[in-house]
Amino acid sequence: MIAAREQLTRLARGTATIIPREELLAKLEERRPLRVKLGVDPTAPDIHLGHTVALTKLRQFQDLGHQAVLIIGDFTAMVGDPSGRSATRPQLDAAAVEAAAATYQEQVFKILDRDRTEVYRNGEWLAPMRFADVIRLGAQSTVARMLERDDFATRYRDGAPIGIHEFLYPLMQAHDSVQIRADVELGGTDQTFNVLLGRQLQKEAGQAPQVAVILPLLEGIDGTAKMSKSLGNYIGVAEPPAEIFGKIMSISDTLMLRYYELLTAEDLTALRRALDAGGMHPMDAKKRLGELLVTRFHGAPAALEARRAFEERFQQRVLDSAALDEIQVTPREGSIWLPGLLHDAKLVKSNSEARRLLKQRAVRIDGATVESEDYPCTQTGQLVLEVGKRRAIRVRVTG
Amino acid sequence: MIAAREQLTRLARGTATIIPREELLAKLEERRPLRVKLGVDPTAPDIHLGHTVALTKLRQFQDLGHQAVLIIGDFTAMVGDPSGRSATRPQLDAAAVEAAAATYQEQVFKILDRDRTEVYRNGEWLAPMRFADVIRLGAQSTVARMLERDDFATRYRDGAPIGIHEFLYPLMQAHDSVQIRADVELGGTDQTFNVLLGRQLQKEAGQAPQVAVILPLLEGIDGTAKMSKSLGNYIGVAEPPAEIFGKIMSISDTLMLRYYELLTAEDLTALRRALDAGGMHPMDAKKRLGELLVTRFHGAPAALEARRAFEERFQQRVLDSAALDEIQVTPREGSIWLPGLLHDAKLVKSNSEARRLLKQRAVRIDGATVESEDYPCTQTGQLVLEVGKRRAIRVRVTG
Repeated sequence: MIAAREQLTRLARGTATIIPREELLAKLEERRPLRVKLGVDPTAPDIHLGHTVALTKLRQFQDLGHQAVLIIGDFTAMVGDPSGRSATRPQLDAAAVEAAAATYQEQVFKILDRDRTEVYRNGEWLAPMRFADVIRLGAQSTVARMLERDDFATRYRDGAPIGIHEFLYPLMQAHDSVQIRADVELGGTDQTFNVLLGRQLQKEAGQAPQVAVILPLLEGIDGTAKMSKSLGNYIGVAEPPAEIFGKIMSISDTLMLRYYELLTAEDLTALRRALDAGGMHPMDAKKRLGELLVTRFHGAPAALEARRAFEERFQQRVLDSAALDEIQVTPREGSIWLPGLLHDAKLVKSNSEARRLLKQRAVRIDGATVESEDYPCTQTGQLVLEVGKRRAIRVRVTG
Repeated sequence: MIAAREQLTRLARGTATIIPREELLAKLEERRPLRVKLGVDPTAPDIHLGHTVALTKLRQFQDLGHQAVLIIGDFTAMVGDPSGRSATRPQLDAAAVEAAAATYQEQVFKILDRDRTEVYRNGEWLAPMRFADVIRLGAQSTVARMLERDDFATRYRDGAPIGIHEFLYPLMQAHDSVQIRADVELGGTDQTFNVLLGRQLQKEAGQAPQVAVILPLLEGIDGTAKMSKSLGNYIGVAEPPAEIFGKIMSISDTLMLRYYELLTAEDLTALRRALDAGGMHPMDAKKRLGELLVTRFHGAPAALEARRAFEERFQQRVLDSAALDEIQVTPREGSIWLPGLLHDAKLVKSNSEARRLLKQRAVRIDGATVESEDYPCTQTGQLVLEVGKRRAIRVRVTG
């Protein structure tokens, strides 16, 4: 096994917080496979990249020799996790939960190592519990503690109803940790309260409390709000390879680095260095990210095909662009200043319009969205510059 | 059956409120035996008169032809009713609850008509409920509604912890009403919220909602705070006959009327008229109340014996009083003005001291506490006037 301190450094990558960090180090120093819990709520049949942040971290634990314990929250799904919600969620029926759970399991093993994963449904121990057991569970937390949670506090203050059963949700999830004797629990920032409640219940049950490894919420492809189906800014893991690849090509350079950090095991330092030094073009880095993610969900051949098809479409566009107007440009210090180029190409009337369009992500070069005013370019050749859907021009880059 | 309106008038006697009154009238007009629920929490092995107010009302329903449904809250007792409480109650174990429930049942049939009483323990239907059932139950109320309750609101505001399980208590009790299809539920003012929640759950279950018949909390023998064991101002139903009789003789005239209203079926109008007209002496009315209550809990022979023993002790005191100083007094308009008498007897130094002692209930005539300045007296003879425990004098009443 890798040294505990080195493990901690690797595991801390991309986390929002680890509570408490020194306890995780102490557990790693025990040099045994830790039981790392991840609870998933199988209510979203379409899993998107946002859901895979924790799975990716769990895989990282597995690769360091630890044991994943996946809890399919079939029972908790009947309540509906109120975390981060502004209204009571509808209670799902057993059949809908069952169907969603099956889909979910199919997807997770595209990321997790099946041999180092125990899978449970929390209905196994929650469903047989009787009223008296629920009372004993309820007695382990207080109304005030529940109302400390931002989501509940906001709803209470705003007069939005909170069902009594919603207060049972965090307790169920915390009880899962006692049941499987978790050493570590992974969760998004909106799960912090629930994960810490697990610590408390474990202590009351005489167990060593789990460490909370809290992960940030992944931004959607618009780079602003958190990735969610309802906002339409998501990449579903079941989407066709070309869709996933194309969406990755459309994200900003900043977001690309974020996705590398949270969704891959790539060496970030080396990547940043290569990008800064101009040794790697951001478009190539996006292509590589697209390939990594499509490989994960559809396999390597599909990823290669997605990349080939994307590039072919681009080449086709270059061929088609024979009919387009052409403009020449010479890069300065290895980059092209886009507002100037757009203005010279008569695609905008002013630098401020150019900046606005870049900000709105309406400018694409060779099919990939660009946001920065400076476009790295060290080779001569031709590019296709597009603004929105209708205006396009061919750019001949000269030395 | 007696006409519905007449039943309503009788049943409304002594109630704090009936919600809604017109629904009770409508149910009574159906001319069928109504199912009248009373839930009791068997956690107080010593039942006192305060507990019998609702039982007395329930007996009144029975005497009008209705069906009593008594719920022994053996299961809810495990949670502990948080109503009116300023702190979480300890959860009792099954054995303690069982013992208390047995004692309770022994006592209640001293008041209720056994032939018109169904008895259930709510553990019958609550204990087998599973987590999913509890969730469905919890979904029927909200945190905000619970925190509208004065007791919970106060504890929340004061930072006193409220266990999550305590929010389940009102729901359990409300569920009992659904289970036994109650037409009416009786409860003290501190139970109003729970009883109204029963209405809500019955509506959601497609039943006609029960009518809430809310009873006032009985004042203790000090006439100020509510009767409670911890305040020491109670009369326990299991106390010896002489104790019960003696405590009744010590209460104020006002409280005597209140006890007649809430604990007996006596005609209040006739009683008040007789007292006001001087046809009945307050001491005789108290003796009658004492007899009624001792008869209820210990039978008629015990009541007669308690009265006889009390009167004998009084006569003994008169005999013993031969050694006391004596003073003569002549009543004016059928009553003696006590401050004047106390002053003449040199038992006080001023009228204001006399008034203070009367207010403090330190003055007794013939063993019964008196509070009013005017003592009704239409017969000649002798009285023993006492102040506190040590000062006493014989009063010769002349024509």
